[in-house]
Amino acid sequence: MSIPVEYLTQRQQKLSRSLKAAGLDALALNPGPSLTYLTGLHFHLSERPVVGVFSREEPPVLILPELESAKLTGLPYELTATTYGEDPSTWSQRFSDALSQHGAPRVGVEHLCIRLLEYRLLQAALPGAEFSDATQVVAGLRMYKDQQEAADMQKAVLIAEVALEATLPYVQVGMTEREVAGLLVQNLLKSGSSGQMPFQPIVSTGPNGANPHATPSDRKLAAGDLLVIDFGANHNDYLSDITRTFAVASYSVEQQEVYQAVL
Amino acid sequence: MSIPVEYLTQRQQKLSRSLKAAGLDALALNPGPSLTYLTGLHFHLSERPVVGVFSREEPPVLILPELESAKLTGLPYELTATTYGEDPSTWSQRFSDALSQHGAPRVGVEHLCIRLLEYRLLQAALPGAEFSDATQVVAGLRMYKDQQEAADMQKAVLIAEVALEATLPYVQVGMTEREVAGLLVQNLLKSGSSGQMPFQPIVSTGPNGANPHATPSDRKLAAGDLLVIDFGANHNDYLSDITRTFAVASYSVEQQEVYQAVL
Repeated sequence: MSIPVEYLTQRQQKLSRSLKAAGLDALALNPGPSLTYLTGLHFHLSERPVVGVFSREEPPVLILPELESAKLTGLPYELTATTYGEDPSTWSQRFSDALSQHGAPRVGVEHLCIRLLEYRLLQAALPGAEFSDATQVVAGLRMYKDQQEAADMQKAVLIAEVALEATLPYVQVGMTEREVAGLLVQNLLKSGSSGQMPFQPIVSTGPNGANPHATPSDRKLAAGDLLVIDFGANHNDYLSDITRTFAVASYSVEQQEVYQAVL
Repeated sequence: MSIPVEYLTQRQQKLSRSLKAAGLDALALNPGPSLTYLTGLHFHLSERPVVGVFSREEPPVLILPELESAKLTGLPYELTATTYGEDPSTWSQRFSDALSQHGAPRVGVEHLCIRLLEYRLLQAALPGAEFSDATQVVAGLRMYKDQQEAADMQKAVLIAEVALEATLPYVQVGMTEREVAGLLVQNLLKSGSSGQMPFQPIVSTGPNGANPHATPSDRKLAAGDLLVIDFGANHNDYLSDITRTFAVASYSVEQQEVYQAVL
Protein backbone atom coordinates (compact mmCIF):
# COMPACT_ATOMS: atom_id res chain seq x y z
CA MET A 1 0.00 0.00 0.00
CA SER A 2 1.93 3.03 -1.20
CA ILE A 3 -0.96 5.56 -0.90
CA PRO A 4 -1.29 6.89 2.69
CA VAL A 5 -4.48 5.63 4.34
CA GLU A 6 -5.70 9.15 5.18
CA TYR A 7 -5.69 9.98 1.47
CA LEU A 8 -7.73 6.87 0.69
CA THR A 9 -10.38 7.55 3.31
CA GLN A 10 -10.57 11.21 2.20
CA ARG A 11 -11.07 10.09 -1.39
CA GLN A 12 -13.80 7.64 -0.38
CA GLN A 13 -15.58 10.34 1.64
CA LYS A 14 -15.33 12.78 -1.23
CA LEU A 15 -16.75 10.16 -3.58
CA SER A 16 -19.69 9.68 -1.21
CA ARG A 17 -20.52 13.39 -1.54
CA SER A 18 -20.04 13.31 -5.32
CA LEU A 19 -22.41 10.35 -5.63
CA LYS A 20 -25.06 12.28 -3.71
CA ALA A 21 -24.57 15.35 -5.91
CA ALA A 22 -24.85 13.20 -9.06
CA GLY A 23 -27.99 11.44 -7.83
CA LEU A 24 -26.25 8.07 -7.67
CA ASP A 25 -26.53 5.50 -4.89
CA ALA A 26 -23.32 3.68 -5.72
CA LEU A 27 -20.33 3.45 -8.02
CA ALA A 28 -19.17 0.04 -9.31
CA LEU A 29 -15.61 -0.21 -10.62
CA ASN A 30 -13.55 -2.96 -12.24
CA PRO A 31 -9.71 -3.04 -12.13
CA GLY A 32 -8.07 0.11 -13.42
CA PRO A 33 -6.79 3.48 -12.26
CA SER A 34 -10.05 4.49 -10.52
CA LEU A 35 -10.22 1.36 -8.37
CA THR A 36 -6.58 1.81 -7.34
CA TYR A 37 -7.20 5.51 -6.65
CA LEU A 38 -10.00 4.70 -4.20
CA THR A 39 -8.61 1.54 -2.58
CA GLY A 40 -4.83 1.61 -3.02
CA LEU A 41 -5.16 -1.96 -4.31
CA HIS A 42 -3.85 -3.31 -7.60
CA PHE A 43 -5.79 -5.80 -9.67
CA HIS A 44 -5.58 -6.53 -13.37
CA LEU A 45 -8.27 -7.31 -15.91
CA SER A 46 -8.54 -11.03 -16.42
CA GLU A 47 -11.06 -13.80 -16.89
CA ARG A 48 -11.80 -13.51 -13.15
CA PRO A 49 -13.99 -10.46 -12.44
CA VAL A 50 -12.97 -8.05 -9.66
CA VAL A 51 -15.52 -5.38 -8.72
CA GLY A 52 -15.47 -2.68 -6.05
CA VAL A 53 -18.79 -1.10 -5.08
CA PHE A 54 -18.72 2.27 -3.31
CA SER A 55 -21.96 3.55 -1.82
CA ARG A 56 -22.86 6.76 0.00
CA GLU A 57 -22.91 5.39 3.56
CA GLU A 58 -21.43 1.90 3.78
CA PRO A 59 -17.76 0.86 3.63
CA PRO A 60 -16.61 -0.25 0.17
CA VAL A 61 -17.57 -3.75 -0.95
CA LEU A 62 -14.99 -5.74 -2.90
CA ILE A 63 -15.76 -8.94 -4.80
CA LEU A 64 -12.62 -10.81 -5.84
CA PRO A 65 -11.18 -14.25 -6.52
CA GLU A 66 -10.09 -16.17 -3.45
CA LEU A 67 -6.61 -16.50 -4.94
CA GLU A 68 -6.18 -12.72 -4.75
CA SER A 69 -7.43 -12.33 -1.18
CA ALA A 70 -3.89 -12.05 0.24
CA LYS A 71 -3.88 -8.53 -1.20
CA LEU A 72 -6.30 -7.50 1.57
CA THR A 73 -4.04 -8.56 4.45
CA GLY A 74 -3.50 -5.67 6.84
CA LEU A 75 -5.73 -3.30 4.89
CA PRO A 76 -5.77 -0.12 7.02
CA TYR A 77 -9.40 0.88 6.35
CA GLU A 78 -12.79 -0.78 6.51
CA LEU A 79 -13.83 -2.86 3.51
CA THR A 80 -16.29 -5.71 3.12
CA ALA A 81 -14.78 -8.44 0.97
CA THR A 82 -16.51 -11.37 -0.71
CA THR A 83 -14.34 -13.95 -2.42
CA TYR A 84 -15.25 -16.64 -4.91
CA GLY A 85 -13.67 -19.90 -6.02
CA GLU A 86 -12.57 -21.16 -9.41
CA ASP A 87 -15.96 -22.39 -10.70
CA PRO A 88 -17.51 -19.58 -12.78
CA SER A 89 -21.00 -21.03 -12.30
CA THR A 90 -20.82 -19.95 -8.63
CA TRP A 91 -19.79 -16.35 -9.25
CA SER A 92 -23.23 -14.89 -9.87
CA GLN A 93 -24.44 -16.12 -6.47
CA ARG A 94 -21.37 -14.65 -4.75
CA PHE A 95 -22.04 -11.28 -6.39
CA SER A 96 -25.65 -11.47 -5.19
CA ASP A 97 -24.51 -12.39 -1.66
CA ALA A 98 -22.09 -9.48 -1.59
CA LEU A 99 -24.62 -6.91 -2.80
CA SER A 100 -27.83 -8.24 -1.23
CA GLN A 101 -27.76 -5.54 1.48
CA HIS A 102 -27.22 -2.80 -1.05
CA GLY A 103 -30.21 -2.71 -3.31
CA ALA A 104 -28.73 0.39 -4.90
CA PRO A 105 -31.19 1.46 -7.58
CA ARG A 106 -28.95 4.00 -9.33
CA VAL A 107 -25.46 2.69 -10.00
CA GLY A 108 -22.67 4.53 -11.79
CA VAL A 109 -20.19 2.60 -13.91
CA GLU A 110 -17.30 3.65 -16.13
CA HIS A 111 -18.32 2.99 -19.74
CA LEU A 112 -14.69 3.16 -20.85
CA CYS A 113 -13.62 0.45 -18.40
CA ILE A 114 -16.37 -1.91 -17.35
CA ARG A 115 -16.81 -5.03 -19.46
CA LEU A 116 -19.94 -7.06 -20.08
CA LEU A 117 -18.33 -9.70 -17.81
CA GLU A 118 -18.71 -7.47 -14.75
CA TYR A 119 -21.82 -5.68 -15.99
CA ARG A 120 -23.89 -8.86 -16.38
CA LEU A 121 -22.93 -10.01 -12.87
CA LEU A 122 -23.89 -6.60 -11.42
CA GLN A 123 -27.21 -6.61 -13.31
CA ALA A 124 -28.10 -10.03 -11.92
CA ALA A 125 -27.02 -9.09 -8.37
CA LEU A 126 -28.89 -5.76 -8.35
CA PRO A 127 -32.22 -6.48 -10.04
CA GLY A 128 -34.03 -3.32 -11.03
CA ALA A 129 -30.92 -1.17 -10.78
CA GLU A 130 -30.36 1.55 -13.37
CA PHE A 131 -26.79 1.80 -14.59
CA SER A 132 -25.40 5.02 -15.98
CA ASP A 133 -22.02 6.32 -17.08
CA ALA A 134 -20.16 7.84 -14.11
CA THR A 135 -16.97 8.69 -15.97
CA GLN A 136 -17.44 12.39 -15.20
CA VAL A 137 -18.15 11.75 -11.50
CA VAL A 138 -14.82 9.95 -11.11
CA ALA A 139 -13.04 12.51 -13.30
CA GLY A 140 -14.42 15.26 -11.05
CA LEU A 141 -12.69 13.66 -8.07
CA ARG A 142 -9.47 12.94 -9.84
CA MET A 143 -8.90 16.34 -11.43
CA TYR A 144 -7.80 17.73 -8.05
CA LYS A 145 -4.31 16.39 -7.42
CA ASP A 146 -2.67 16.23 -4.00
CA GLN A 147 1.04 16.96 -3.61
CA GLN A 148 2.02 13.32 -3.88
CA GLU A 149 0.06 12.94 -7.11
CA ALA A 150 1.57 16.11 -8.59
CA ALA A 151 5.05 14.86 -7.69
CA ASP A 152 4.31 11.45 -9.23
CA MET A 153 3.14 13.08 -12.46
CA GLN A 154 6.25 15.25 -12.64
CA LYS A 155 8.44 12.22 -12.03
CA ALA A 156 6.66 10.30 -14.81
CA VAL A 157 7.47 13.14 -17.21
CA LEU A 158 11.09 13.33 -16.02
CA ILE A 159 11.57 9.57 -16.51
CA ALA A 160 10.24 9.85 -20.07
CA GLU A 161 12.52 12.79 -20.87
CA VAL A 162 15.61 11.06 -19.48
CA ALA A 163 14.76 7.89 -21.44
CA LEU A 164 14.36 9.85 -24.68
CA GLU A 165 17.67 11.63 -24.19
CA ALA A 166 19.40 8.33 -23.52
CA THR A 167 17.89 6.85 -26.69
CA LEU A 168 18.44 9.61 -29.27
CA PRO A 169 22.24 9.34 -29.61
CA TYR A 170 21.84 5.70 -30.70
CA VAL A 171 19.15 6.33 -33.30
CA GLN A 172 20.64 6.14 -36.76
CA VAL A 173 19.85 5.54 -40.41
CA GLY A 174 19.19 1.85 -41.05
CA MET A 175 17.66 1.04 -37.66
CA THR A 176 14.06 -0.21 -37.75
CA GLU A 177 11.15 1.46 -35.98
CA ARG A 178 10.87 -1.65 -33.84
CA GLU A 179 14.53 -1.44 -32.78
CA VAL A 180 14.17 2.20 -31.77
CA ALA A 181 11.04 1.33 -29.78
CA GLY A 182 12.84 -1.55 -28.01
CA LEU A 183 15.76 0.69 -27.08
CA LEU A 184 13.40 3.37 -25.79
CA VAL A 185 11.53 0.88 -23.58
CA GLN A 186 14.84 -0.36 -22.14
CA ASN A 187 15.79 3.22 -21.32
CA LEU A 188 12.37 3.90 -19.79
CA LEU A 189 12.93 0.98 -17.42
CA LYS A 190 16.49 2.04 -16.62
CA SER A 191 15.23 5.55 -15.90
CA GLY A 192 12.74 4.19 -13.39
CA SER A 193 9.46 3.57 -15.20
CA SER A 194 7.33 0.68 -14.06
CA GLY A 195 7.13 -2.15 -16.59
CA GLN A 196 3.44 -1.33 -17.02
CA MET A 197 3.88 1.39 -19.65
CA PRO A 198 0.93 3.73 -20.35
CA PHE A 199 0.90 2.28 -23.87
CA GLN A 200 3.33 0.58 -26.23
CA PRO A 201 5.64 3.33 -27.56
CA ILE A 202 4.83 4.44 -31.10
CA VAL A 203 7.87 4.88 -33.30
CA SER A 204 6.88 5.73 -36.87
CA THR A 205 8.90 7.02 -39.79
CA GLY A 206 8.23 8.37 -43.25
CA PRO A 207 4.73 7.42 -44.46
CA ASN A 208 3.93 5.63 -41.17
CA GLY A 209 4.34 8.96 -39.40
CA ALA A 210 1.00 10.03 -40.90
CA ASN A 211 -0.72 7.32 -38.83
CA PRO A 212 -1.06 8.73 -35.31
CA HIS A 213 -1.55 5.28 -33.73
CA ALA A 214 0.96 3.33 -35.81
CA THR A 215 2.46 0.10 -34.53
CA PRO A 216 6.30 0.04 -34.76
CA SER A 217 7.26 -1.89 -37.91
CA ASP A 218 10.41 -3.23 -39.54
CA ARG A 219 10.67 -0.11 -41.72
CA LYS A 220 14.24 1.20 -41.65
CA LEU A 221 15.01 4.83 -40.89
CA ALA A 222 16.26 6.69 -43.95
CA ALA A 223 17.94 10.07 -44.23
CA GLY A 224 15.30 12.73 -44.80
CA ASP A 225 12.58 10.84 -42.90
CA LEU A 226 10.51 12.43 -40.25
CA LEU A 227 10.56 10.27 -37.11
CA VAL A 228 7.61 10.42 -34.69
CA ILE A 229 8.10 9.07 -31.16
CA ASP A 230 4.98 8.95 -28.96
CA PHE A 231 5.47 7.32 -25.57
CA GLY A 232 5.22 7.68 -21.83
CA ALA A 233 6.43 6.40 -18.48
CA ASN A 234 4.61 5.05 -15.44
CA HIS A 235 5.60 6.18 -11.96
CA ASN A 236 3.43 4.96 -9.08
CA ASP A 237 0.53 4.52 -11.55
CA TYR A 238 0.84 8.10 -12.79
CA LEU A 239 1.51 8.30 -16.49
CA SER A 240 3.25 10.67 -18.85
CA ASP A 241 2.45 10.92 -22.56
CA ILE A 242 4.91 12.75 -24.79
CA THR A 243 5.11 13.06 -28.58
CA ARG A 244 8.19 14.39 -30.37
CA THR A 245 9.02 14.61 -34.08
CA PHE A 246 12.61 14.53 -35.36
CA ALA A 247 14.28 14.89 -38.74
CA VAL A 248 16.53 11.94 -39.60
CA ALA A 249 19.94 12.80 -41.08
CA SER A 250 22.98 10.78 -41.97
CA TYR A 251 26.10 11.56 -39.96
CA SER A 252 29.63 10.36 -40.45
CA VAL A 253 31.15 8.30 -37.63
CA GLU A 254 33.24 11.35 -36.66
CA GLN A 255 30.18 13.59 -36.47
CA GLN A 256 28.39 11.00 -34.37
CA GLU A 257 31.31 10.86 -31.96
CA VAL A 258 31.29 14.61 -31.58
CA TYR A 259 27.52 14.55 -31.07
CA GLN A 260 27.68 11.84 -28.43
CA ALA A 261 30.59 13.56 -26.67
CA VAL A 262 28.51 16.74 -26.42
CA LEU A 263 25.60 14.82 -24.89
CA MET B 1 0.07 -6.61 -42.32
CA SER B 2 2.18 -9.52 -41.11
CA ILE B 3 -0.55 -12.19 -41.40
CA PRO B 4 -0.82 -13.55 -44.98
CA VAL B 5 -4.09 -12.48 -46.61
CA GLU B 6 -5.10 -16.06 -47.45
CA TYR B 7 -5.02 -16.88 -43.72
CA LEU B 8 -7.23 -13.90 -42.95
CA THR B 9 -9.85 -14.75 -45.55
CA GLN B 10 -9.82 -18.40 -44.44
CA ARG B 11 -10.37 -17.31 -40.84
CA GLN B 12 -13.24 -15.02 -41.85
CA GLN B 13 -14.86 -17.82 -43.86
CA LYS B 14 -14.47 -20.24 -40.99
CA LEU B 15 -16.04 -17.70 -38.64
CA SER B 16 -18.99 -17.39 -40.99
CA ARG B 17 -19.59 -21.16 -40.66
CA SER B 18 -19.12 -21.03 -36.87
CA LEU B 19 -21.67 -18.23 -36.56
CA LYS B 20 -24.20 -20.32 -38.46
CA ALA B 21 -23.51 -23.34 -36.25
CA ALA B 22 -23.91 -21.21 -33.12
CA GLY B 23 -27.15 -19.65 -34.32
CA LEU B 24 -25.62 -16.18 -34.50
CA ASP B 25 -26.06 -13.63 -37.28
CA ALA B 26 -22.96 -11.62 -36.46
CA LEU B 27 -19.98 -11.21 -34.18
CA ALA B 28 -19.01 -7.75 -32.89
CA LEU B 29 -15.47 -7.27 -31.61
CA ASN B 30 -13.57 -4.41 -30.01
CA PRO B 31 -9.74 -4.10 -30.13
CA GLY B 32 -7.92 -7.15 -28.86
CA PRO B 33 -6.43 -10.44 -30.01
CA SER B 34 -9.64 -11.64 -31.73
CA LEU B 35 -10.01 -8.53 -33.89
CA THR B 36 -6.36 -8.77 -34.93
CA TYR B 37 -6.76 -12.49 -35.62
CA LEU B 38 -9.60 -11.85 -38.04
CA THR B 39 -8.42 -8.62 -39.68
CA GLY B 40 -4.64 -8.47 -39.27
CA LEU B 41 -5.17 -4.93 -37.96
CA HIS B 42 -3.92 -3.49 -34.69
CA PHE B 43 -5.99 -1.12 -32.59
CA HIS B 44 -5.81 -0.36 -28.91
CA LEU B 45 -8.53 0.25 -26.36
CA SER B 46 -9.03 3.95 -25.85
CA GLU B 47 -11.70 6.57 -25.37
CA ARG B 48 -12.45 6.23 -29.09
CA PRO B 49 -14.44 3.05 -29.81
CA VAL B 50 -13.30 0.71 -32.58
CA VAL B 51 -15.69 -2.11 -33.52
CA GLY B 52 -15.50 -4.82 -36.18
CA VAL B 53 -18.72 -6.58 -37.14
CA PHE B 54 -18.48 -9.94 -38.91
CA SER B 55 -21.64 -11.41 -40.38
CA ARG B 56 -22.35 -14.66 -42.19
CA GLU B 57 -22.51 -13.31 -45.74
CA GLU B 58 -21.24 -9.75 -45.96
CA PRO B 59 -17.64 -8.49 -45.84
CA PRO B 60 -16.53 -7.31 -42.39
CA VAL B 61 -17.68 -3.87 -41.26
CA LEU B 62 -15.23 -1.73 -39.33
CA ILE B 63 -16.17 1.44 -37.43
CA LEU B 64 -13.14 3.48 -36.41
CA PRO B 65 -11.90 7.00 -35.74
CA GLU B 66 -10.93 8.97 -38.81
CA LEU B 67 -7.47 9.51 -37.35
CA GLU B 68 -6.82 5.76 -37.53
CA SER B 69 -8.06 5.30 -41.09
CA ALA B 70 -4.51 5.23 -42.52
CA LYS B 71 -4.30 1.71 -41.09
CA LEU B 72 -6.66 0.53 -43.83
CA THR B 73 -4.49 1.72 -46.73
CA GLY B 74 -3.80 -1.15 -49.12
CA LEU B 75 -5.87 -3.63 -47.16
CA PRO B 76 -5.74 -6.82 -49.28
CA TYR B 77 -9.30 -8.02 -48.60
CA GLU B 78 -12.78 -6.57 -48.76
CA LEU B 79 -13.92 -4.54 -45.75
CA THR B 80 -16.56 -1.84 -45.35
CA ALA B 81 -15.21 0.98 -43.20
CA THR B 82 -17.08 3.80 -41.52
CA THR B 83 -15.06 6.51 -39.81
CA TYR B 84 -16.12 9.15 -37.32
CA GLY B 85 -14.71 12.49 -36.22
CA GLU B 86 -13.67 13.83 -32.84
CA ASP B 87 -17.11 14.85 -31.53
CA PRO B 88 -18.49 11.94 -29.43
CA SER B 89 -22.07 13.19 -29.90
CA THR B 90 -21.85 12.14 -33.57
CA TRP B 91 -20.61 8.59 -32.96
CA SER B 92 -23.94 6.93 -32.32
CA GLN B 93 -25.24 8.09 -35.71
CA ARG B 94 -22.10 6.80 -37.43
CA PHE B 95 -22.57 3.39 -35.80
CA SER B 96 -26.19 3.37 -36.97
CA ASP B 97 -25.13 4.36 -40.51
CA ALA B 98 -22.54 1.59 -40.59
CA LEU B 99 -24.90 -1.13 -39.37
CA SER B 100 -28.19 0.01 -40.92
CA GLN B 101 -28.01 -2.67 -43.63
CA HIS B 102 -27.27 -5.38 -41.10
CA GLY B 103 -30.24 -5.62 -38.82
CA ALA B 104 -28.56 -8.66 -37.24
CA PRO B 105 -30.94 -9.85 -34.55
CA ARG B 106 -28.55 -12.27 -32.83
CA VAL B 107 -25.14 -10.76 -32.16
CA GLY B 108 -22.24 -12.43 -30.40
CA VAL B 109 -19.85 -10.33 -28.30
CA GLU B 110 -16.90 -11.22 -26.08
CA HIS B 111 -17.92 -10.63 -22.47
CA LEU B 112 -14.28 -10.58 -21.39
CA CYS B 113 -13.40 -7.81 -23.84
CA ILE B 114 -16.28 -5.62 -24.87
CA ARG B 115 -16.91 -2.53 -22.76
CA LEU B 116 -20.13 -0.68 -22.11
CA LEU B 117 -18.72 2.04 -24.40
CA GLU B 118 -18.97 -0.21 -27.46
CA TYR B 119 -21.97 -2.18 -26.21
CA ARG B 120 -24.23 0.89 -25.79
CA LEU B 121 -23.34 2.07 -29.31
CA LEU B 122 -24.11 -1.38 -30.75
CA GLN B 123 -27.41 -1.56 -28.84
CA ALA B 124 -28.50 1.79 -30.23
CA ALA B 125 -27.39 0.92 -33.79
CA LEU B 126 -29.07 -2.51 -33.79
CA PRO B 127 -32.42 -1.99 -32.08
CA GLY B 128 -34.03 -5.26 -31.07
CA ALA B 129 -30.79 -7.21 -31.35
CA GLU B 130 -30.07 -9.90 -28.77
CA PHE B 131 -26.49 -9.93 -27.56
CA SER B 132 -24.90 -13.07 -26.19
CA ASP B 133 -21.45 -14.17 -25.10
CA ALA B 134 -19.53 -15.58 -28.09
CA THR B 135 -16.27 -16.25 -26.25
CA GLN B 136 -16.54 -19.96 -27.02
CA VAL B 137 -17.29 -19.37 -30.71
CA VAL B 138 -14.08 -17.38 -31.11
CA ALA B 139 -12.15 -19.83 -28.94
CA GLY B 140 -13.36 -22.64 -31.18
CA LEU B 141 -11.74 -20.95 -34.18
CA ARG B 142 -8.56 -20.03 -32.40
CA MET B 143 -7.80 -23.39 -30.82
CA TYR B 144 -6.62 -24.71 -34.20
CA LYS B 145 -3.21 -23.17 -34.85
CA ASP B 146 -1.61 -22.92 -38.27
CA GLN B 147 2.14 -23.45 -38.67
CA GLN B 148 2.90 -19.76 -38.39
CA GLU B 149 0.94 -19.48 -35.16
CA ALA B 150 2.63 -22.56 -33.68
CA ALA B 151 6.03 -21.11 -34.60
CA ASP B 152 5.10 -17.76 -33.07
CA MET B 153 4.04 -19.44 -29.82
CA GLN B 154 7.26 -21.43 -29.66
CA LYS B 155 9.28 -18.29 -30.28
CA ALA B 156 7.41 -16.46 -27.50
CA VAL B 157 8.39 -19.26 -25.10
CA LEU B 158 12.00 -19.24 -26.30
CA ILE B 159 12.27 -15.46 -25.82
CA ALA B 160 10.97 -15.81 -22.26
CA GLU B 161 13.42 -18.62 -21.47
CA VAL B 162 16.41 -16.73 -22.88
CA ALA B 163 15.40 -13.61 -20.91
CA LEU B 164 15.11 -15.57 -17.67
CA GLU B 165 18.52 -17.18 -18.17
CA ALA B 166 20.05 -13.79 -18.85
CA THR B 167 18.49 -12.40 -15.67
CA LEU B 168 19.19 -15.12 -13.09
CA PRO B 169 22.97 -14.65 -12.78
CA TYR B 170 22.39 -11.04 -11.68
CA VAL B 171 19.75 -11.81 -9.06
CA GLN B 172 21.24 -11.55 -5.59
CA VAL B 173 20.43 -10.97 -1.96
CA GLY B 174 19.58 -7.32 -1.32
CA MET B 175 17.98 -6.60 -4.70
CA THR B 176 14.33 -5.54 -4.60
CA GLU B 177 11.51 -7.37 -6.35
CA ARG B 178 11.03 -4.29 -8.49
CA GLU B 179 14.69 -4.30 -9.57
CA VAL B 180 14.52 -7.95 -10.57
CA ALA B 181 11.34 -7.24 -12.56
CA GLY B 182 12.97 -4.28 -14.32
CA LEU B 183 16.01 -6.35 -15.27
CA LEU B 184 13.79 -9.16 -16.55
CA VAL B 185 11.79 -6.78 -18.75
CA GLN B 186 15.01 -5.36 -20.20
CA ASN B 187 16.15 -8.88 -21.03
CA LEU B 188 12.76 -9.74 -22.54
CA LEU B 189 13.14 -6.80 -24.91
CA LYS B 190 16.76 -7.66 -25.74
CA SER B 191 15.69 -11.23 -26.44
CA GLY B 192 13.12 -10.02 -28.94
CA SER B 193 9.82 -9.58 -27.12
CA SER B 194 7.53 -6.82 -28.26
CA GLY B 195 7.18 -4.00 -25.71
CA GLN B 196 3.54 -5.02 -25.27
CA MET B 197 4.15 -7.72 -22.64
CA PRO B 198 1.35 -10.22 -21.93
CA PHE B 199 1.24 -8.79 -18.40
CA GLN B 200 3.60 -6.93 -16.07
CA PRO B 201 6.06 -9.55 -14.75
CA ILE B 202 5.33 -10.71 -11.22
CA VAL B 203 8.41 -10.98 -9.01
CA SER B 204 7.48 -11.87 -5.45
CA THR B 205 9.57 -13.05 -2.54
CA GLY B 206 9.00 -14.42 0.94
CA PRO B 207 5.47 -13.67 2.16
CA ASN B 208 4.55 -11.95 -1.13
CA GLY B 209 5.13 -15.26 -2.89
CA ALA B 210 1.87 -16.51 -1.39
CA ASN B 211 0.00 -13.91 -3.46
CA PRO B 212 -0.29 -15.33 -6.98
CA HIS B 213 -0.97 -11.93 -8.55
CA ALA B 214 1.43 -9.83 -6.47
CA THR B 215 2.75 -6.51 -7.77
CA PRO B 216 6.58 -6.22 -7.56
CA SER B 217 7.44 -4.24 -4.41
CA ASP B 218 10.52 -2.74 -2.79
CA ARG B 219 10.97 -5.83 -0.61
CA LYS B 220 14.60 -6.96 -0.69
CA LEU B 221 15.56 -10.53 -1.46
CA ALA B 222 16.93 -12.33 1.60
CA ALA B 223 18.79 -15.61 1.88
CA GLY B 224 16.31 -18.41 2.48
CA ASP B 225 13.47 -16.66 0.57
CA LEU B 226 11.48 -18.38 -2.10
CA LEU B 227 11.41 -16.22 -5.22
CA VAL B 228 8.46 -16.52 -7.62
CA ILE B 229 8.85 -15.15 -11.16
CA ASP B 230 5.71 -15.20 -13.34
CA PHE B 231 6.10 -13.54 -16.73
CA GLY B 232 5.86 -13.92 -20.46
CA ALA B 233 6.97 -12.59 -23.82
CA ASN B 234 5.06 -11.33 -26.86
CA HIS B 235 6.11 -12.42 -30.33
CA ASN B 236 3.86 -11.33 -33.22
CA ASP B 237 0.95 -11.03 -30.73
CA TYR B 238 1.47 -14.60 -29.50
CA LEU B 239 2.16 -14.75 -25.79
CA SER B 240 4.05 -17.02 -23.44
CA ASP B 241 3.29 -17.32 -19.72
CA ILE B 242 5.85 -19.01 -17.51
CA THR B 243 6.09 -19.28 -13.72
CA ARG B 244 9.24 -20.45 -11.94
CA THR B 245 10.11 -20.62 -8.24
CA PHE B 246 13.69 -20.35 -6.98
CA ALA B 247 15.39 -20.60 -3.61
CA VAL B 248 17.47 -17.55 -2.75
CA ALA B 249 20.92 -18.21 -1.27
CA SER B 250 23.86 -16.02 -0.37
CA TYR B 251 27.01 -16.64 -2.37
CA SER B 252 30.47 -15.25 -1.87
CA VAL B 253 31.88 -13.17 -4.71
CA GLU B 254 34.09 -16.12 -5.66
CA GLN B 255 31.15 -18.50 -5.81
CA GLN B 256 29.22 -16.01 -7.94
CA GLU B 257 32.15 -15.75 -10.36
CA VAL B 258 32.26 -19.52 -10.70
CA TYR B 259 28.49 -19.62 -11.19
CA GLN B 260 28.52 -16.93 -13.83
CA ALA B 261 31.47 -18.53 -15.61
CA VAL B 262 29.54 -21.80 -15.81
CA LEU B 263 26.56 -20.02 -17.34
